[in-house]
Amino acid sequence: MSPKITTELLKQLRQVMKNSRYVQEPVQAYIVPSGDAHQSEYIAPCDCRRAFISGFDGSAGTAIVTEQHAAMWTDGRYFLQAAHQMDSNWTLMKMGLKDTPTQEDWLVSVLPEGSKVGVDPFIIPADQWKRMSKALRSAGHDLVPVKENLIDTIWTDCPQRPCKPLITLDLSYTGVSWRDKIVALRSKMAERKVMWFVVTALDEVAWLFNLRGSDVEYNPVFFAYAVIGMNTIRLFIDGDRMMDPAVREHLQLDSTLEPEFKIQVMPYGSILSELQAVGAGLSPKEKVWLSDKASYALTEAIPKAYRYLTPYTPICIAKAVKNAAETEGMRRAHIKDAVALCELFNWLEKEVPKGTVTEIVAADKAEEFRSQQKDFVELSFATISSTGPNGAIIHYKPVPETNRTLSVNEIYLLDSGAQYKDGTTDVTRTMHFGTPSAYEKECFTYVLKGHIAVSAAIFPNGTKGHLLDSFARSALWDCGLDYLHGTGHGVGSFLNVHEGPCGISYKTFADEPLEAGMIVSDEPGYYEDGSFGIRIENVVLVIPAETKYNFKNRGSLTFEPLTLVPIQTKMIDVDLLTEKECNWVNEYHQKCREVVGAELERQGRHEALRWLLRETEPLARVQ
Amino acid sequence: MSPKITTELLKQLRQVMKNSRYVQEPVQAYIVPSGDAHQSEYIAPCDCRRAFISGFDGSAGTAIVTEQHAAMWTDGRYFLQAAHQMDSNWTLMKMGLKDTPTQEDWLVSVLPEGSKVGVDPFIIPADQWKRMSKALRSAGHDLVPVKENLIDTIWTDCPQRPCKPLITLDLSYTGVSWRDKIVALRSKMAERKVMWFVVTALDEVAWLFNLRGSDVEYNPVFFAYAVIGMNTIRLFIDGDRMMDPAVREHLQLDSTLEPEFKIQVMPYGSILSELQAVGAGLSPKEKVWLSDKASYALTEAIPKAYRYLTPYTPICIAKAVKNAAETEGMRRAHIKDAVALCELFNWLEKEVPKGTVTEIVAADKAEEFRSQQKDFVELSFATISSTGPNGAIIHYKPVPETNRTLSVNEIYLLDSGAQYKDGTTDVTRTMHFGTPSAYEKECFTYVLKGHIAVSAAIFPNGTKGHLLDSFARSALWDCGLDYLHGTGHGVGSFLNVHEGPCGISYKTFADEPLEAGMIVSDEPGYYEDGSFGIRIENVVLVIPAETKYNFKNRGSLTFEPLTLVPIQTKMIDVDLLTEKECNWVNEYHQKCREVVGAELERQGRHEALRWLLRETEPLARVQ
Repeated sequence: MSPKITTELLKQLRQVMKNSRYVQEPVQAYIVPSGDAHQSEYIAPCDCRRAFISGFDGSAGTAIVTEQHAAMWTDGRYFLQAAHQMDSNWTLMKMGLKDTPTQEDWLVSVLPEGSKVGVDPFIIPADQWKRMSKALRSAGHDLVPVKENLIDTIWTDCPQRPCKPLITLDLSYTGVSWRDKIVALRSKMAERKVMWFVVTALDEVAWLFNLRGSDVEYNPVFFAYAVIGMNTIRLFIDGDRMMDPAVREHLQLDSTLEPEFKIQVMPYGSILSELQAVGAGLSPKEKVWLSDKASYALTEAIPKAYRYLTPYTPICIAKAVKNAAETEGMRRAHIKDAVALCELFNWLEKEVPKGTVTEIVAADKAEEFRSQQKDFVELSFATISSTGPNGAIIHYKPVPETNRTLSVNEIYLLDSGAQYKDGTTDVTRTMHFGTPSAYEKECFTYVLKGHIAVSAAIFPNGTKGHLLDSFARSALWDCGLDYLHGTGHGVGSFLNVHEGPCGISYKTFADEPLEAGMIVSDEPGYYEDGSFGIRIENVVLVIPAETKYNFKNRGSLTFEPLTLVPIQTKMIDVDLLTEKECNWVNEYHQKCREVVGAELERQGRHEALRWLLRETEPLARVQ
Repeated sequence: MSPKITTELLKQLRQVMKNSRYVQEPVQAYIVPSGDAHQSEYIAPCDCRRAFISGFDGSAGTAIVTEQHAAMWTDGRYFLQAAHQMDSNWTLMKMGLKDTPTQEDWLVSVLPEGSKVGVDPFIIPADQWKRMSKALRSAGHDLVPVKENLIDTIWTDCPQRPCKPLITLDLSYTGVSWRDKIVALRSKMAERKVMWFVVTALDEVAWLFNLRGSDVEYNPVFFAYAVIGMNTIRLFIDGDRMMDPAVREHLQLDSTLEPEFKIQVMPYGSILSELQAVGAGLSPKEKVWLSDKASYALTEAIPKAYRYLTPYTPICIAKAVKNAAETEGMRRAHIKDAVALCELFNWLEKEVPKGTVTEIVAADKAEEFRSQQKDFVELSFATISSTGPNGAIIHYKPVPETNRTLSVNEIYLLDSGAQYKDGTTDVTRTMHFGTPSAYEKECFTYVLKGHIAVSAAIFPNGTKGHLLDSFARSALWDCGLDYLHGTGHGVGSFLNVHEGPCGISYKTFADEPLEAGMIVSDEPGYYEDGSFGIRIENVVLVIPAETKYNFKNRGSLTFEPLTLVPIQTKMIDVDLLTEKECNWVNEYHQKCREVVGAELERQGRHEALRWLLRETEPLARVQ
């Protein structure tokens, strides 16, 4: 990897920072955050502005360019990569280290008095703007919005914003029509006495209208905003996608509808002016609901007194609770996914000993098997296919420079998933194709105990996911071990593989309580730098639990695994399991046999079926 | 309990709300919070202004009086009590119920346009002021500080502010001299680049100067503030307490000292003017450190740009980590406390069957046995002595109206503790003096399993206490049971029985990580309304744990019980315990035998010793 030469680019950027065509007054610093205008986790190539200006293309980082300096803030996952990808024009700011200044402190230390710091108001979330603006102001500087993105002005070969065709989802996939979703949303709006709701997150727009797209890799979303009033629906979207008869039919664009369900289609770029018009026309006590993560530009369009900001929108919360059609779809998707993985692991077992299977080959093979399944759309994230020491790099993705050959002497960790039209999958299995060491088995078994502790947990209605995180760690903690990531994230239904508002993490983010119908991952792990990585991940559905008593009539919840892929028994030290844990494994494998076995049979995949049957032999625990 | 008649008082209050002697402009509403000027949990009689004006004397509640209305906000613990104690002038606002308005919303709904709402700026914490002020302003009203407390102007027989003699603690109790504490504090101040630190919490003043008082019942503190500069120490305290030669000697008031350790003693009431003088004399970049819970009055004394506010002060954090002298003191205190409780339970076992022991008699007897122990000072909180259905009232305190007689047919719950000069105790035991039912034993055993799960937990350095809370609930959750309070709180060393910054709770308050030397309670419970209450509480010390591995060299922690009082084995359903849990109970009881047994022997308390030996017979678990 050789660094990107950025001398000329930085010169150009510093010129436009002073060019009155783009800025009202010269800005002495310009901030280039990672995100897009929708605060998406995965972004389109045209939004990779920070990577363009610096060369550093990790998923997290913020660049700041002043007249004299160029600095990049990123976290521990990316120190090495950023150092490799950036040339000497750039200073790497290692976040999380004690002596690293914050962006605000650094700006204050390098800027001349009374400086202006520019940022694209569409890219920076309102809460971040507020924090940074306050810090700069108290040091005598100003944070100013620069309407035209300055990177775009110098990015001559910037890719176009994607504008791919849309997929319409009928009731058999969504369970609820977009009209009924609008009705439910308006009832939430009425409850909170708000008149308008602004949909800014891409997956929320997609969910609300029962549409999907492919503008962003891995995430079946499309670039759009929506503004929902009590009597109006405005969808801001570009391209001729709205010319597609199927889409027109789906949205009933050409039907005679009650006015409150008539969708007004408007250009994507007109959201700001339309929202400003909404803001200007508000009567006292009329509020507008926005996510507190919406961009500064859109938030500012509504006068402060009229804003109603919440960390999670009613769409985010409704979307998280899957209905029967979505749950059934997720079940189907996971069965197909399991079929693909049974094929893969059976194939790997035969091929790995030959020494010809690399991490990339294995990842490609996994995709090949998945793509053979009905309604397969694409992968749901970049496959983490890692063997030996690469397995200890938690966010590893094999590239030619790091690509390692699988062998019978190393642990193999595969974290992968797909988008099917009926659901989204995300599964991690850790396998050994030779004979694991006692230590590897010991560590694997602690991770498994943690996985089971969460999966089998019973907890009251209203419990937040973060209260379950320690269950996943307890067995590891007992031996002085741990893992440095959360235990679970929400999973979309043919939508983003990471979604709010629930999760299982030691980080106390403001998660919403778990509810029956929510779907999260359960993925504890253990990683030994330079040696191996272990993770066991199922996607699990929150379901009601039967309990002996029922305190305060609150009811209880537990999880049902949707993922049905064998957990390699060869890696388990059975003596470390309790009887209850042993039974859990055996019952889980029995279900894999029954459900996935039937599907393998149906698809005529007899060799993979034999592999499944062998891998799901019951564990025998010596009492 | 008949309600307090408040018609005349409210009339008087409404008059002073318009009296220009006390208010610059008339106020249309006046807020009477619960607290004192130090945001103390327990307050002195002279600070019980809300109880005076309303009659309601529960520990939590806020009164607001307008020209037309008088309303009281309190939580579910006190709905019944408040309803009994208040007359018809008052409207009870039941917090936590869906339809109950917030104080701000209610004020907005009842006030005429452009109203002024008054509050004593010394009583309201700065963060609460900010929230309420913002809400009122956005509705066109103003929150205004009223310097003279309006309740005090009409409270003709208001008790005097206590001003009791001080106790000096030498190094054998504190481990660190006040001079060294000042040095450590100044080094924390230098780290954060602050020039001044304002000590507002009473227990922080007491801890810093190695002094104790008795101005507030149960809390060995005294009314004082301190302002620590890099070269100055100012102690704001009233009365002739500073004339006491022992105190003068302890604080070296008459010695020739380096100027930076010379304590300037000033009147308690001069804190505001002195702090305003500090605020006025600050140079740019000179910051003043305050708790973000300090009063609005003191916070406002420092111009905004110079304030450095944190949720926990460096004293709060240092105070929480007990040194060797404090830990040894706490151990001694808990052994003496165990002696008293062995005596009590032995006595109860004999007396309860006679039918003459009431909850109050039992509480008094507990205090009597404790007071026989060396260095006993007072109780550390009002004893919760509750039998049968009273045990299900979590914050119960027996009064003549509710006083119930202990019997061989009901569960008895005793939550009690004391202040000894060498430490503070807080212990709950749940006993049956007859034959418990299978169901009572079952519930008790789940609570015990939760208690053990926390007490025996091993967790990495840096773990916050709230991550352990679910361990305490898991066994209850499995059966659909739970308890509606936190699992543990920090405990002071001959100081407040509740202290920050650590704790074990499902509520994600901003707790600081647990560290070796911290002391918390471990007190899961189970309560069945109208039937019984169960709680098992030990005070436990955070200690380093030995583990098989040591991930990232972080080290691990666990707990050592300081409380050494038998857990009634009669209440345990041994079949529900795992082997590990059974061993834990037996090892715990073995330690009670050895340590407390030796002390009972030394004190010649042979009958109680025989009781202890009988109660600590090992459990036998059928495999």
